[in-house]
Amino acid sequence: MAPSAQPLTTSVPDEKYANVKWEDLGFGFVRTDNMYVAKCKHGENFQEGSIVPFADFHISPCAAVLHYGQGLYEGLKAYRTEDGRIIIFRPDQNGLRLQAGADRLCMPYPSVDQFVSAIKQVVLANKKWIPPPGKGTLYIRPILFGSGPILGSFPVPEYTFLVFACPVGRYHKDNSGLNLKIEDKVRRAFPSGTGGVKSITNYCPVWKTLAEAKAQGFSDVLFLDAATGKNVEELFASNIFIVKGNVVSTPQISGTILPGVTRKSIIELTRDFGYKVEERVIPVEDLLDSEEVFCTGTAAIVTTIASVTFKDKKSSFKTGEKSLAAKLFATLTDIQMGRVEDTKGWTVEIDRSHQG
Amino acid sequence: MAPSAQPLTTSVPDEKYANVKWEDLGFGFVRTDNMYVAKCKHGENFQEGSIVPFADFHISPCAAVLHYGQGLYEGLKAYRTEDGRIIIFRPDQNGLRLQAGADRLCMPYPSVDQFVSAIKQVVLANKKWIPPPGKGTLYIRPILFGSGPILGSFPVPEYTFLVFACPVGRYHKDNSGLNLKIEDKVRRAFPSGTGGVKSITNYCPVWKTLAEAKAQGFSDVLFLDAATGKNVEELFASNIFIVKGNVVSTPQISGTILPGVTRKSIIELTRDFGYKVEERVIPVEDLLDSEEVFCTGTAAIVTTIASVTFKDKKSSFKTGEKSLAAKLFATLTDIQMGRVEDTKGWTVEIDRSHQG
Repeated sequence: MAPSAQPLTTSVPDEKYANVKWEDLGFGFVRTDNMYVAKCKHGENFQEGSIVPFADFHISPCAAVLHYGQGLYEGLKAYRTEDGRIIIFRPDQNGLRLQAGADRLCMPYPSVDQFVSAIKQVVLANKKWIPPPGKGTLYIRPILFGSGPILGSFPVPEYTFLVFACPVGRYHKDNSGLNLKIEDKVRRAFPSGTGGVKSITNYCPVWKTLAEAKAQGFSDVLFLDAATGKNVEELFASNIFIVKGNVVSTPQISGTILPGVTRKSIIELTRDFGYKVEERVIPVEDLLDSEEVFCTGTAAIVTTIASVTFKDKKSSFKTGEKSLAAKLFATLTDIQMGRVEDTKGWTVEIDRSHQG
Repeated sequence: MAPSAQPLTTSVPDEKYANVKWEDLGFGFVRTDNMYVAKCKHGENFQEGSIVPFADFHISPCAAVLHYGQGLYEGLKAYRTEDGRIIIFRPDQNGLRLQAGADRLCMPYPSVDQFVSAIKQVVLANKKWIPPPGKGTLYIRPILFGSGPILGSFPVPEYTFLVFACPVGRYHKDNSGLNLKIEDKVRRAFPSGTGGVKSITNYCPVWKTLAEAKAQGFSDVLFLDAATGKNVEELFASNIFIVKGNVVSTPQISGTILPGVTRKSIIELTRDFGYKVEERVIPVEDLLDSEEVFCTGTAAIVTTIASVTFKDKKSSFKTGEKSLAAKLFATLTDIQMGRVEDTKGWTVEIDRSHQG
């Protein structure tokens, strides 16, 4: 799908909403009204930034992020509820993960309070871009990067923390479940690398592999671990779970897979349902031998996996309304959309008092 | 060393030269006068770009390079000769390497002719920043990156090829030879990754390791291969060679080390000197058992390695004027500086006819 660089058009203008044909929303770039920007000099701490109109910004041709890949991103969503509230999901978790990544990539970082405040400000400043209930969500994209010039030697003189947002629909279009390719040669991450943080350096290096798999008709790629090539790790940008009987397993956090906020939430909900959840090494054979497979992520939410193809052999799994994935998707989105009481303390409601 | 964001001052103004105290030049960012910029839309080819004043430029907050690390850099140098000519060294090789990297990272790329033309234009447009003979060189930094906005899905709508230049002195300050730390845990690259191309994603992930080694008093880090942890690969940004008797060895190009232009040139010069050169797997033990060790790179040129420390044990090597490294440094820089006839066809002279 080509990114939408311009707002989609609609024939029903509405002051409460931006001029968007909500039914046509995919998962791509849509230009919205405002963004948040904060800068920080080397040796200083991030101070409160400000909301500015969404626009291209100035950067040095010698910026650290352009030459040495010093950058992180995060992803979270704002939801408009049926009763008119606006809520975000566990933003503190994204703020903490950004901090871990910044430490790994030698950057200063905003406090969790600053991070959450920035998210709230961006949501309010783009309120009319939050889709109507059931039509999508406002995807919020924080980035932190080395913006000052550096050539060869430390330190980077300036860092930028920037947050913008785009209305999005479903990330995966395959309603009947994903068909994954298990990649047998190319690895996503390796021990001592950056696979455990949301570093920008994790993504482009596997674009070619993802594009090739998509050209072959697959929905996404499931990567194996670089150390042995025997164990499943994660998809391009989501975590994986397998189900067998009363046991649900997911790869353990060991530095090569991303500690997903949705992953963490799904582990808790699955235990609430009475399943045993194991975070462990998962050989490909265990995946192939499982009854049900699904992936999780802020973009993917909970998405059923219909099949995996490993070395040209396709294995299929349980899908449909009676799957655990369907039950987890319903439970998680009920909480995220504010349709049920949040007994976990996961959601944060945004009101006008957060503005500015 | 802190980067120099402002031109260094001098008390001897000279129309031929920029206002730089050449003796104080290190290897860091210095703002010069002009840069080259070319853009390319998805599905099109790069057309001729143009020289514009060096300045911060506009980029989308959702640019591919900022979120997914889609970027490459190159590095080469322009030299001012004693007899007043300006020459560059094997720019076609950098152009070809940029193309290989662009293919790996799913980007279109300039032709080698466009690349070399851009380099020449940047050198001429910053001519007064080329240090006097013997005082340094003009380091030229091309970058190619995804500049268009993308969120989650292909394609990237726009790419930018940009070239700027900074006068530089020596990269390594250690005149008596480098003292390296052989890193035993953190790897730089892994099979199927991007170690074999000059991807921006290769650098920041090992900054922390480099900074820790420097804080311990080491000059640089020597990384081992990720697959076995037993074989030497390269330094942070230079290739390594070992000498034993009449045999000079360097790690083979296998996808995890950068195919350096200086590496390639040094292999040829070493063979001219009558040595046998082997490109092969080099176990750490072979390095420790060698008589002389040196590293090569556009920034490093040829730099003697005085010692390596592996698991707290330090091994020392031959240094000084009678070393092979010293002989290779002299021969290579004689060619690069135009002090001897270039019988290899490696140097390209720039004259006014190349301008814009």
